[in-house]
Amino acid sequence: MAASSAATLAASPAPRGRAGRSAFPPPPVTARPVDRDAWIAAFRQVRDETEARAAPLSPEDQQVQSMADASPTKWHRAHTTWFFEQFLLREHRPGYRIFDERLHYLFNSYYVAAGPRQPRISRGLITRPTAAETAAYRSYVDEAVEALLAEASPEALGRVLPILEIGLYHEQQHQELILTDILHAFAQNPLAPAYDPGWRFPRPQAAEGAAALPAGLTRIGHEGEGFSFDNESPRHDVLILPGAIDRALVTNAEWLAFMADGGYARPELWLSDGWIAAQTEGWEAPGYWQREGAAWLTMTLAGMRTVDPDLPVTHISYYEADAYARWAGRDLPTEAEWEVAARDGGLADAFGLVWQWTRSAYSAYPGYRPLPGALGEYNGKFMSNQFVLRGSSVATPAGHARLPYRNFFYPHQRWQFTGLRLSRQASA
Amino acid sequence: MAASSAATLAASPAPRGRAGRSAFPPPPVTARPVDRDAWIAAFRQVRDETEARAAPLSPEDQQVQSMADASPTKWHRAHTTWFFEQFLLREHRPGYRIFDERLHYLFNSYYVAAGPRQPRISRGLITRPTAAETAAYRSYVDEAVEALLAEASPEALGRVLPILEIGLYHEQQHQELILTDILHAFAQNPLAPAYDPGWRFPRPQAAEGAAALPAGLTRIGHEGEGFSFDNESPRHDVLILPGAIDRALVTNAEWLAFMADGGYARPELWLSDGWIAAQTEGWEAPGYWQREGAAWLTMTLAGMRTVDPDLPVTHISYYEADAYARWAGRDLPTEAEWEVAARDGGLADAFGLVWQWTRSAYSAYPGYRPLPGALGEYNGKFMSNQFVLRGSSVATPAGHARLPYRNFFYPHQRWQFTGLRLSRQASA
Amino acid sequence: MAASSAATLAASPAPRGRAGRSAFPPPPVTARPVDRDAWIAAFRQVRDETEARAAPLSPEDQQVQSMADASPTKWHRAHTTWFFEQFLLREHRPGYRIFDERLHYLFNSYYVAAGPRQPRISRGLITRPTAAETAAYRSYVDEAVEALLAEASPEALGRVLPILEIGLYHEQQHQELILTDILHAFAQNPLAPAYDPGWRFPRPQAAEGAAALPAGLTRIGHEGEGFSFDNESPRHDVLILPGAIDRALVTNAEWLAFMADGGYARPELWLSDGWIAAQTEGWEAPGYWQREGAAWLTMTLAGMRTVDPDLPVTHISYYEADAYARWAGRDLPTEAEWEVAARDGGLADAFGLVWQWTRSAYSAYPGYRPLPGALGEYNGKFMSNQFVLRGSSVATPAGHARLPYRNFFYPHQRWQFTGLRLSRQASA
Amino acid sequence: MAASSAATLAASPAPRGRAGRSAFPPPPVTARPVDRDAWIAAFRQVRDETEARAAPLSPEDQQVQSMADASPTKWHRAHTTWFFEQFLLREHRPGYRIFDERLHYLFNSYYVAAGPRQPRISRGLITRPTAAETAAYRSYVDEAVEALLAEASPEALGRVLPILEIGLYHEQQHQELILTDILHAFAQNPLAPAYDPGWRFPRPQAAEGAAALPAGLTRIGHEGEGFSFDNESPRHDVLILPGAIDRALVTNAEWLAFMADGGYARPELWLSDGWIAAQTEGWEAPGYWQREGAAWLTMTLAGMRTVDPDLPVTHISYYEADAYARWAGRDLPTEAEWEVAARDGGLADAFGLVWQWTRSAYSAYPGYRPLPGALGEYNGKFMSNQFVLRGSSVATPAGHARLPYRNFFYPHQRWQFTGLRLSRQASA
Repeated sequence: MAASSAATLAASPAPRGRAGRSAFPPPPVTARPVDRDAWIAAFRQVRDETEARAAPLSPEDQQVQSMADASPTKWHRAHTTWFFEQFLLREHRPGYRIFDERLHYLFNSYYVAAGPRQPRISRGLITRPTAAETAAYRSYVDEAVEALLAEASPEALGRVLPILEIGLYHEQQHQELILTDILHAFAQNPLAPAYDPGWRFPRPQAAEGAAALPAGLTRIGHEGEGFSFDNESPRHDVLILPGAIDRALVTNAEWLAFMADGGYARPELWLSDGWIAAQTEGWEAPGYWQREGAAWLTMTLAGMRTVDPDLPVTHISYYEADAYARWAGRDLPTEAEWEVAARDGGLADAFGLVWQWTRSAYSAYPGYRPLPGALGEYNGKFMSNQFVLRGSSVATPAGHARLPYRNFFYPHQRWQFTGLRLSRQASA
Repeated sequence: MAASSAATLAASPAPRGRAGRSAFPPPPVTARPVDRDAWIAAFRQVRDETEARAAPLSPEDQQVQSMADASPTKWHRAHTTWFFEQFLLREHRPGYRIFDERLHYLFNSYYVAAGPRQPRISRGLITRPTAAETAAYRSYVDEAVEALLAEASPEALGRVLPILEIGLYHEQQHQELILTDILHAFAQNPLAPAYDPGWRFPRPQAAEGAAALPAGLTRIGHEGEGFSFDNESPRHDVLILPGAIDRALVTNAEWLAFMADGGYARPELWLSDGWIAAQTEGWEAPGYWQREGAAWLTMTLAGMRTVDPDLPVTHISYYEADAYARWAGRDLPTEAEWEVAARDGGLADAFGLVWQWTRSAYSAYPGYRPLPGALGEYNGKFMSNQFVLRGSSVATPAGHARLPYRNFFYPHQRWQFTGLRLSRQASA
Repeated sequence: MAASSAATLAASPAPRGRAGRSAFPPPPVTARPVDRDAWIAAFRQVRDETEARAAPLSPEDQQVQSMADASPTKWHRAHTTWFFEQFLLREHRPGYRIFDERLHYLFNSYYVAAGPRQPRISRGLITRPTAAETAAYRSYVDEAVEALLAEASPEALGRVLPILEIGLYHEQQHQELILTDILHAFAQNPLAPAYDPGWRFPRPQAAEGAAALPAGLTRIGHEGEGFSFDNESPRHDVLILPGAIDRALVTNAEWLAFMADGGYARPELWLSDGWIAAQTEGWEAPGYWQREGAAWLTMTLAGMRTVDPDLPVTHISYYEADAYARWAGRDLPTEAEWEVAARDGGLADAFGLVWQWTRSAYSAYPGYRPLPGALGEYNGKFMSNQFVLRGSSVATPAGHARLPYRNFFYPHQRWQFTGLRLSRQASA
Repeated sequence: MAASSAATLAASPAPRGRAGRSAFPPPPVTARPVDRDAWIAAFRQVRDETEARAAPLSPEDQQVQSMADASPTKWHRAHTTWFFEQFLLREHRPGYRIFDERLHYLFNSYYVAAGPRQPRISRGLITRPTAAETAAYRSYVDEAVEALLAEASPEALGRVLPILEIGLYHEQQHQELILTDILHAFAQNPLAPAYDPGWRFPRPQAAEGAAALPAGLTRIGHEGEGFSFDNESPRHDVLILPGAIDRALVTNAEWLAFMADGGYARPELWLSDGWIAAQTEGWEAPGYWQREGAAWLTMTLAGMRTVDPDLPVTHISYYEADAYARWAGRDLPTEAEWEVAARDGGLADAFGLVWQWTRSAYSAYPGYRPLPGALGEYNGKFMSNQFVLRGSSVATPAGHARLPYRNFFYPHQRWQFTGLRLSRQASA
């Protein structure tokens, strides 16, 4: 990663601003000798962050699943724990005793190879274990993981650390979901509860104009010895065509202009599937927006707030991003374009505000092969019908974002902190 | 009500066995002078019973809505409170200050005349107010109701008591639902939690043979000055045809014989709509039954238990009751037949074990007119597509059951404690 | 049947007005000696009437199934033929060779005991046999049935005639459906094709006031040796309560007053299930009505026509009939009330205009037992969730209507020629 | 287009083998002077081919719409006619009188800019105009188009020919759908009617091994003055990575090996969305396959036939193609890889047997802009959730297939003649 983008990442706001030196990310798994303390510290930091995000929530809040795409907070807390128990302790901790075998069925998410599981849509029906019992489950597993890290032979550690590492990044992904899922749940409540009354969306950097794309052959994807998900590999050549990509994110003010120009009422601006979704769902503004007289309010983690025109637009679907770009006579960038522009320091707010829709359908990099075993289901099996988003959001935990990171969602989904920046493709 | 049926009622097991002299039912609303203390005592008893039924449940348990027909415990606690606030305090308690106007939308159930309301299907999404905040709401309203009862002028009391009385019976209906709804929720959980590990289904009385029906003209429906719901009136003449009605309820042992004879696999035994429901839902036994090897288990308020052959079958739909009667070459009684047989003391376990499906579609008694205003929506608007059940169940609170009581559910529903007894219609 | 009602029936308009002496209904099945020619003539008349009703329809028209409740004309023509082949010829015509065994699956309607069948919803997908091939199937079976009638031994005839007779009444029921189903199909077409440009709805008789009901015990149901469906038996005692029933049907003019008074916008007038249906389906007028400026048009068998205020309202659901009665402060009659009033000559237009919703849920008469075998599925298995309609409609073939006839439909259905008359129940 | 691929195209079987010199494709629209006779001949040939494909079908066959994705034959015949009337005659033929303005609503497919239209799902409900009336509509429009071609000024012709040309290619696309849609309809019929008993699937060429891909920069997309759809432009640079692509299509024999190895029962082989589709739809073999004892039959245009192991597999979804490739340890090619391999003559049966799924999500070429006006809806608005198929099929009309042609379908669809060939991506 080039210096400039490292700078960008460093500048990305730590969303929940806890103080002190970060223990995350841990050292590379290949570093020798293994720094056990560093790994334990990283493990604790990630586990603590999950609990810190759940802390403002009542047992009732943690119970609810407000739609099929979302999960209860309690489930996130338990599932991330199950992940360590299932993939790390069960196999690699001799003598480990499973906390409760019955939880396996409840907290497997989608790993078919790991056995049958609670239907996703019914996660909200499971009232036992309670939130308090879930905390006990977490403690039990935490203790065992820390003991494993302290006591495993160096040889065993070589097998353990790659699993631990993916478990930490996995848990961070669920930390982001804890916030987006509870925001969705609270948005269903006419009382519009605040997750954190003091929460504020970070302000964007001042940025103007567009960065020219470095036309020609270059390489994208994961490189080096740090962590990556399998879908970021293999690093490979890509051809960048001439063009430019905006330095700034699209703002609420710009989005209001789109709306004022009939953006949600003109089918010629929309993809066919997008128009159907917009009509079916009754979209006439981004997710969580509500009209109040002449003003627009939006549901946020701080409760209902007036839409701030200077902030980046968020909670938009791919379909809306695409319609906006068509309305503006512009393009969405490809994920390769985004990656090289961010690498070269051309983008403001690449990280930490909103995930940015690209026009790249989520698919395998050339020569990609998933991991063997159940963890091979992590990313590869979702490579249809979704689009890639790049960067990271206000909800992404500190240390999680990386330049080649490939996030992906279905084009109709908008409960994540999703926004966009525009590009312009030069005529070929 | 004749002595014999009063005896039956008196013999009906108080389902949750709390000791002490009962303050419920209160005196007739027309009794003068008004015994304010008796009314306050009755009010307290009903309100306490609700809290007693919720007490074993965690905040998570109280949050969940496991299907559209069910509601969260917390919702029941709040809705019954709203009922008093809306219909009693708002109008009849001068200077009463609404606890929180925003709750009105959340806890109206189906009273269209009382304004818009939270969609029924989304009751489980409302995590705030929490269970603890709901308790505060209850206390606040309780205090105001008791003050109203203590302070209202005699003239005002004349208007207040009929509303209070319906509010108490209304809350008792929700007490029954608290048990049936949480049983459904717990049945979705592979851990099969127990509501009360010591709970036992009451054993039926010894009873054999059938009671002959008193053929000819008689009268059914509410009579006298005690409480009744509007749908029990007017009392009117009916013609009872010759026939007989079994003294005993159908048992699990008998139901197992029906199953062994292919009861769930022979379409000729079923109503057309019933067969579709059975195929769609995959019914092959009563609700909550699960095969375990050669045995049948059933989910109960005490957790998973072996099916006891001597107990009355329960959690069956009307469709199943109807198919069973056809298989047995018998009939289900009409609601009039049931009422006169129970009145004359011909039925064992008329009350307190299972509601008993009749073959009477739920409809208006001749000359029936609903109450004016929002309370007119209580019963009358449900008079299509449902069938009448008579008696009461193990979950019915003490003092609630009455001879002319008309319960009603859709023919596919089976999460209530519903069973049957057979009859035989003499050839006309 | 009393003379007066016979007169009413005789006065009922023959809906399609074909001339000549009617051969239908045939003699009683028990009449001896058997008049073979009369039976053959009755058979031919019914079979011809089906073809006459299909004649104005193109092969395309005959192919279409416009909703799950409706069936293609071609299917009606084939299914009624299959009925004779399956229940009459297969068993009772020695040496009969099935026309095409593969048709059995296609043209069984709902006789589970007769084997698997084409899913109802997919009847419109079967393009072969074509309409022309269906005509050949009809001719083949007609010839065999007529030969059977001519050649069967007297003893065999005794078994054959009851099946033939039910087959004829069965085919007449499908004749009515041919008209109502094609009307529904044509109503989906923006071109609003006319089934018969010369078709006119018959004008109602002049009638005023209400006929008092003969309070007390009386008997209803089938009696005598003529044909009846099993659900009309046993004839049995009923108790008629005091009241009166309107001589005239409710008219379009009256319905427009209901609409003008917000009938479709006031939930307090509606059953709960009815209000849901009305909102879901967007009802704001009877079926097939369309606003055109200030006027109302309605789709008819003659194409789109202005609503005639003097005609009886039709294409209304039970829910609408019930809401109208509540709005009018009146009742719908029970089926017993209807039957005794019609019997005594108290009703104008009891037959031949519109089926009249009663407030009786469709259920078994006391002591009812269905026919043995597959024909036992004819009526009995539909005894839930439907309401009884009495009389007959403009689409009912001549000779089909009878006093104790019990028609039944689901309360949301309105593609039949369904209307209402009001009653008033005296206070009990 | 290189000579070798031209040869491939020339060799592609004319699917319905009509004799005589082909008048299609017509001259380039820019050729001067305009050869009016050549254009009229091309027009006639295309219009005649549509009628020839409809000729074996009865009016009933032409009426049916067997699923939302399919359309009635009659609709295809009318819609292609409407296309000329709407986009050509209405604007460019002075004095032209619309055949019937009411047809506009019925036969617009999805052109939002051209006004409201019959819901797609209800196309099968429109029985009028009949097939015969549709023929009259076609003749009327044909005459007007031919007169326009004969009489238009040279200047007018310059505007007319590009619309005419797209109209012809458009109609050819519907010719393919006429066959695939009626095959789907016939497959719903237990009688398994044959569209053409003499129809045979063409045998594949002998071909072995894989063609190496020309790694490096090259160009794809439309070039030259011949016809193309807008989505084939702009021609642009692409980077081909090292790899190879199979010369032969995957056969039924190979597919049976996949099935025998549990291909349809092993979730680890499938995309997540694909596995859900397979489970929901109950897939255990390609579309139209049915087990008969130990053999597999498949529904074809000649009726039910034994699966021929030597033929290419067809009627498979993208999900199945993807699972097969994973099972085989291979890849699907990208559309660019397919295009350069076909261009260089490396592929057997690139055209004329089955469309070949690529792993390219259907999206815009860099710098793509749709046509202005309603015709801009032709291709661009479908650029989400679909995958590109390349080549052509046995149902594609002669002269229609071209090297840069981009077909696209949703990944779950399989009623087209869709198959696959494998590739291998060299490790990056």
